[in-house]
Amino acid sequence: MRRTRFDDWPCPIARTTDLVGDWWTPLVMRQAFLGCRRFDEFQQSLGVSRAVLTERLNRLVDEGMLTREPYEQHPPRHEYRLTDKGRAFWPVLAAMWRWGQDWVPDDADPVLVDRNSGEPVVPLVIDERTGEPLDVRRLRLRSG
Amino acid sequence: MRRTRFDDWPCPIARTTDLVGDWWTPLVMRQAFLGCRRFDEFQQSLGVSRAVLTERLNRLVDEGMLTREPYEQHPPRHEYRLTDKGRAFWPVLAAMWRWGQDWVPDDADPVLVDRNSGEPVVPLVIDERTGEPLDVRRLRLRSG
Repeated sequence: MRRTRFDDWPCPIARTTDLVGDWWTPLVMRQAFLGCRRFDEFQQSLGVSRAVLTERLNRLVDEGMLTREPYEQHPPRHEYRLTDKGRAFWPVLAAMWRWGQDWVPDDADPVLVDRNSGEPVVPLVIDERTGEPLDVRRLRLRSG
Repeated sequence: MRRTRFDDWPCPIARTTDLVGDWWTPLVMRQAFLGCRRFDEFQQSLGVSRAVLTERLNRLVDEGMLTREPYEQHPPRHEYRLTDKGRAFWPVLAAMWRWGQDWVPDDADPVLVDRNSGEPVVPLVIDERTGEPLDVRRLRLRSG
């Protein structure tokens, strides 16, 4: 049975959910952000079945979030690289990281740090226009 | 077949994915943020089956993101209200909104506006410590 599709709903959340709204895709993207490029790296780091991983990687390539690039000719081998569209998805996972850290914390978690300064990174979602943190109580939608 | 569970992985993204990583849950939360409280409001606004909606709402109540509150005694009726934990999830959806708007845009989309000022809201994920937008190329994990 095909699930309901959200890719033509007039809502950016619905369309984003259509792309990444399953249990494995955000974790595949997380591994890409952490530097995974080869199928086996994704597979071993996540412990996901090869069939599920193939399907998720193909979807991310079809949607333009990853590209498949050859790195060896004999035998033919390829790796997955983030596109600009894929890289731009990091803030979404970072917002998930922050919420998870605040509301479902675990002492075993690694710490997100800045590669240059070595300092912890603390993701915060603000309104770019005002610089203030978002508050859902101030949310309203206006027809486009 | 039960899907793989991520709720005990040492990663805030994995645990958050475990809670909301399916196609309907982010949209149920979106409707809660937009003011839906009653089962029929969720059901009619999303066009989701009653069985699927019941399952998703129950999960969100079990996880402490929504509470079920009676609003009528005869006959007994209840509604769903956001908890602090649920309300704190809005920035995650706001980050999805921004990415969706930038990368899978649609002219029919409504505009996110501030209830008080009426101005458009532009979600941006920054590092709270430095005030700078996040860049995945500067990401590193350090063991906790």
